[in-house]
Amino acid sequence: MIDDKYEPLTIQNLPKRLMAVRELTDQIGQNVDAWEVKEVGDGNLNLVFIVKSPSGAVIVKQALPYVRLVGDSWPLPLYRAYFEYHALTRQAARAEGTVPKIYYFNSDQALLVMEYLTPHKILREKLILGEKVENLATDVGQFCARTAFRGSDLSLDTAQVKNDRALFAGNVAIPAITEALVFTDPYFDANMNNHTAGLDVIVETIRNDVEMKARTQHFFRLYSAQQDTMCHGDLHSGSIMCTSTESKVIDPEFVTYGPFGFDLGMLFANYFMAFFSQIEHRGDNLEDYQNWILEVISETWSSFEKEFSDLWHTERTGMLYPKTMFEDQGHSSDKALISLLNDIWRNSLGFCGIEMHRRCLSLAHNADFERIDDLERRAPLEARNLMLGRDLILKSEKIRSTNDLLNLARKFNAEDFL
Amino acid sequence: MIDDKYEPLTIQNLPKRLMAVRELTDQIGQNVDAWEVKEVGDGNLNLVFIVKSPSGAVIVKQALPYVRLVGDSWPLPLYRAYFEYHALTRQAARAEGTVPKIYYFNSDQALLVMEYLTPHKILREKLILGEKVENLATDVGQFCARTAFRGSDLSLDTAQVKNDRALFAGNVAIPAITEALVFTDPYFDANMNNHTAGLDVIVETIRNDVEMKARTQHFFRLYSAQQDTMCHGDLHSGSIMCTSTESKVIDPEFVTYGPFGFDLGMLFANYFMAFFSQIEHRGDNLEDYQNWILEVISETWSSFEKEFSDLWHTERTGMLYPKTMFEDQGHSSDKALISLLNDIWRNSLGFCGIEMHRRCLSLAHNADFERIDDLERRAPLEARNLMLGRDLILKSEKIRSTNDLLNLARKFNAEDFL
Repeated sequence: MIDDKYEPLTIQNLPKRLMAVRELTDQIGQNVDAWEVKEVGDGNLNLVFIVKSPSGAVIVKQALPYVRLVGDSWPLPLYRAYFEYHALTRQAARAEGTVPKIYYFNSDQALLVMEYLTPHKILREKLILGEKVENLATDVGQFCARTAFRGSDLSLDTAQVKNDRALFAGNVAIPAITEALVFTDPYFDANMNNHTAGLDVIVETIRNDVEMKARTQHFFRLYSAQQDTMCHGDLHSGSIMCTSTESKVIDPEFVTYGPFGFDLGMLFANYFMAFFSQIEHRGDNLEDYQNWILEVISETWSSFEKEFSDLWHTERTGMLYPKTMFEDQGHSSDKALISLLNDIWRNSLGFCGIEMHRRCLSLAHNADFERIDDLERRAPLEARNLMLGRDLILKSEKIRSTNDLLNLARKFNAEDFL
Repeated sequence: MIDDKYEPLTIQNLPKRLMAVRELTDQIGQNVDAWEVKEVGDGNLNLVFIVKSPSGAVIVKQALPYVRLVGDSWPLPLYRAYFEYHALTRQAARAEGTVPKIYYFNSDQALLVMEYLTPHKILREKLILGEKVENLATDVGQFCARTAFRGSDLSLDTAQVKNDRALFAGNVAIPAITEALVFTDPYFDANMNNHTAGLDVIVETIRNDVEMKARTQHFFRLYSAQQDTMCHGDLHSGSIMCTSTESKVIDPEFVTYGPFGFDLGMLFANYFMAFFSQIEHRGDNLEDYQNWILEVISETWSSFEKEFSDLWHTERTGMLYPKTMFEDQGHSSDKALISLLNDIWRNSLGFCGIEMHRRCLSLAHNADFERIDDLERRAPLEARNLMLGRDLILKSEKIRSTNDLLNLARKFNAEDFL
């Protein structure tokens, strides 16, 4: 087994340090001379290696004790690998086949060995390249519905829910990133903020909108307090890997018990940013591809709604909305379901708007916009995104359908805010 | 020190078993021959002794391993004393002077030694006897505001909030009583239910109101998931002890992280039950005393609102609604505060309606009604209470002020539902 004291892996020492890990050699063989190690961590927080041999390949992911994007001035506890491990095992059980298989977890080394997804690519890259993914909406919509429903008091025994809430409440430092970067920093002049030149007027509009800021804090309260279910916590297009027909969800280290609509909202936001940025990434097929992205948003919600409803009717064994109170008395629970789905929908729009703000205003921007080198062309697109975000935060209770939502996006896509 | 193995205290063995507890003898002296022990537990769950000596008096409260009201067929873990202890220390720090002082806690014996409140009487008894309590609304309204605000992400460092959420998530079995008896059993034909003869038609109305039942489950979801703050968890008039001018809050063993409005809602419900039952307890002064109860409700809310607002302006140091986002930018946060208070108000009405139901329909009824021996006179009063409860659940979002609420109560107090 590998040594106890935490030490970051390197391309050089990885084979020697992991050669005794049986769960790994089961996958790629014991002949370390044939191992090929590549560092591919393009995220903000971790070391990620692909380790290949003639007989197979695995991903080795190791947490670093600081935020990689910022450096060792921002320390970050290694325990996040522990929470990622627990999140992955639960997601695997609740939404079979949607997350990478875990072969091995080592707590001291904050290290996971897991399935190498191939030929999957990060969805964000595909969206920038204009590649379509069949079944994307269904795969991810179902993932959201299954993890939401099956991690909640609609399904689990409540002692299990309380146990998991307590477990994941230990994940303080990683959700703290969301608390700061997503829900707070965009709305004041925070140290690590940055935005594209030309956006000052939009930033001012947003920071002067007191009603909107109050609503962001209402959603912040929900994020922090409303512990409906185990959320992925960071479900953007960089946390989804796809072939042309299949999608998997990765990187749940921001796992937290949170509101049902949180993951969906983050996801919608990242699709909207892909949507608005397309003008600079596409040629002739712009309209077709933008429409496809909007369809993905709409179908993700439909797929969520359908799957959540199916589970409601077939797996509602938790303490909330018990059948004793409805079906067993000959009463339909459908209106209760619709009312809950409406609540999830509305909240997802609020979270969506906030995520659209933070990706242009605080730290950790999106490649969708960042890859547009010409700032004078980037700024107006980010402005559309920021202004739609504001609208969603303000009107989350008034937007009744995916149709209304997509029409709003189309409208903002044609406006000039600068 | 007392022996390790849990054993219920008796009047006979208490002096011998506790004589070595210094924190107790500091209060009442070491001469056990002069101790006078009385068992006064009139609640549903615990042993409660008053231990007096010429030099002082204390309360000794010990958890029993089952629900006292039901017997050993309903086991209940002793760990609740541990949660009560942690709740009491936090309440003492956050709302100084409103809870009994703790002298000693022993985890193995599930035992607390605490201040003997005298000449305090249980508020429910005073309400049945028609006694007024000066400052009741202010004392309890402030208690609710201070514990709500200071236990939340509005005030505490969020790592502390998460730590306490995890801690109190361990209190599974006691909130489970609330989950069953309050939020579920009233709405179906549960085993332990009972209601006064003559109420069948009202029970039928309630159980057939699918929209209302769906709303009860919305509030159940909030109770379970929306962990705004540390709630007392069982704040009825039997959990308040008063002199003619001073009120203290006792018995927080149902402590749970829950929604801001939960304690207020439970409290309002118990005041409404006192209100409706008065007709059978009072003579000439009926109207005066009923009006006083309604005033207490109204002033409890005003006092909560005022204190919560004061704390908002002076102690808002948590991560939610940060000053960096409002005051530091020259923006008032008052609208955000009002919106949050409206949310708390609306939710408290929902919880109120549900508590009004459970106290007449499931296990553990209230003395306010139970002391009315003539069932034909009791039933119509409980009917008013049940029907107002239903209205509050259905209309919690439409009742805008304490005035509207009290007018509704007066209207139902004049109606004949049977």
